Amino acid sequence: MTPRLFVEDDLAAGGEASLSDAQVHYLRQVLRRTDGAALRLFNGRDGEWAGAFQGQGKKSGVAVIAEQLREQDREPDVWLCFAPVKKARIDFVAEKATELGVALLQPVLTQHTMVERVNVERLRANAVEAAEQSERLSVPQVRAPVSLAGLLSDWPGQRRLLMCDETGHGEPIARALAGLDENAKQAPWAILVGPEGGFDRVELEALRRMKDVTAAGLGPRILRADTAALAALACWQALVGDWQRPTPRLAADYRTSRGLV
Amino acid sequence: MTPRLFVEDDLAAGGEASLSDAQVHYLRQVLRRTDGAALRLFNGRDGEWAGAFQGQGKKSGVAVIAEQLREQDREPDVWLCFAPVKKARIDFVAEKATELGVALLQPVLTQHTMVERVNVERLRANAVEAAEQSERLSVPQVRAPVSLAGLLSDWPGQRRLLMCDETGHGEPIARALAGLDENAKQAPWAILVGPEGGFDRVELEALRRMKDVTAAGLGPRILRADTAALAALACWQALVGDWQRPTPRLAADYRTSRGLV
Repeated sequence: MTPRLFVEDDLAAGGEASLSDAQVHYLRQVLRRTDGAALRLFNGRDGEWAGAFQGQGKKSGVAVIAEQLREQDREPDVWLCFAPVKKARIDFVAEKATELGVALLQPVLTQHTMVERVNVERLRANAVEAAEQSERLSVPQVRAPVSLAGLLSDWPGQRRLLMCDETGHGEPIARALAGLDENAKQAPWAILVGPEGGFDRVELEALRRMKDVTAAGLGPRILRADTAALAALACWQALVGDWQRPTPRLAADYRTSRGLV
Repeated sequence: MTPRLFVEDDLAAGGEASLSDAQVHYLRQVLRRTDGAALRLFNGRDGEWAGAFQGQGKKSGVAVIAEQLREQDREPDVWLCFAPVKKARIDFVAEKATELGVALLQPVLTQHTMVERVNVERLRANAVEAAEQSERLSVPQVRAPVSLAGLLSDWPGQRRLLMCDETGHGEPIARALAGLDENAKQAPWAILVGPEGGFDRVELEALRRMKDVTAAGLGPRILRADTAALAALACWQALVGDWQRPTPRLAADYRTSRGLV
């Protein structure tokens, strides 16, 4: 299986892309790759490229870029705004949300948020790894935590909000999303998931005063915050996002040709 | 917060329910509860009951049952048939699928399944814990692993199958599920998710020969098996299962009265 790496540099035929020390270590020590080993590379802008590893001394190296394998595609513009949860669970949110195609991860501190410290670098590392694994052509942006009040006061005017509402005042999620008009479906979106203790009364009132908010219920069971985030994102992709389009048939050939099977 | 425990015994006013050694240890050593401490109890048959802890010597104890808090409700009959994944991820599948309301967890061994050993007791313990946390009134059944061929040859005639199809031959999942008629929606269901390497050709052919199979695509990105399982289950609940009904409004009061907020 050809290693697939996210790089920062531009990708073009005949060019070189810098590899981080961690990437070189991973290629050499973990995967036991030597000079000339095949790589796949993406940077979120230029699609995916075939390349080859070239060491520079013992600890550093570059990727020499050969030909383009896939063009950059347009991805849904959907943010996940979530009250942070404990370490293993937040790793999991970053990984799963990346696979599910989120564009931006925004930790949000609310009245009942128990976990206040967020390791943004770690979140980003999880997102990069999940993007590499999931054949995504981009890595979600990861933002530093903000308060819910701060998030709402700076809310971008065009961006619609899907709020996971466990109070019972939201419509069932499929009905809420399927009933949107085409303009609303084409808009940029964000999904907001509160902490385990729920939003407090003042927060709920502030959210209900906002325009373009869709409050949706996720059934009769109490979901953990991480479960709710991923369930809502999956439903959003299925009903509003790019899961509405057929899965590309070439996917199977692509997988085979890349040694993924 | 009142501890919520799954027990095997019948629950009725004035009765007693046995607590396992592990439950007694948890109440005494972890939660520091003493005799008379309030409990909530469910067994998957009799709804949820208020009760009180009563020790019997140092290491064992029972729950004395007081009044019923909730009646047993009818839950969707949906199985999750999944190729097992590595330890942390399979724990996660059991936990999340339980929160998402699955009725039965069936590990399935396929041609490309990398993980063959499944600790069924551990899966069940994860399911019990998630049921206790999620306010579910039941615990999903956990079955021992079977081969895909064995599963399909014994397939119950009435049960429909939603197959996560990454070859690109399935319809987009929301379209596939929204287009079902009412009879199909009311039927018992199973969701089948293959291993990371996908189903092999013979398996795909066997699945396509079955009747009442809905092959569905989950978008353009490659999902890990655990992500696909939970995303498909969330979409199924939203479009076919009990997420179609409004989230009960009393949930908020219920949460408050149980000290969950």
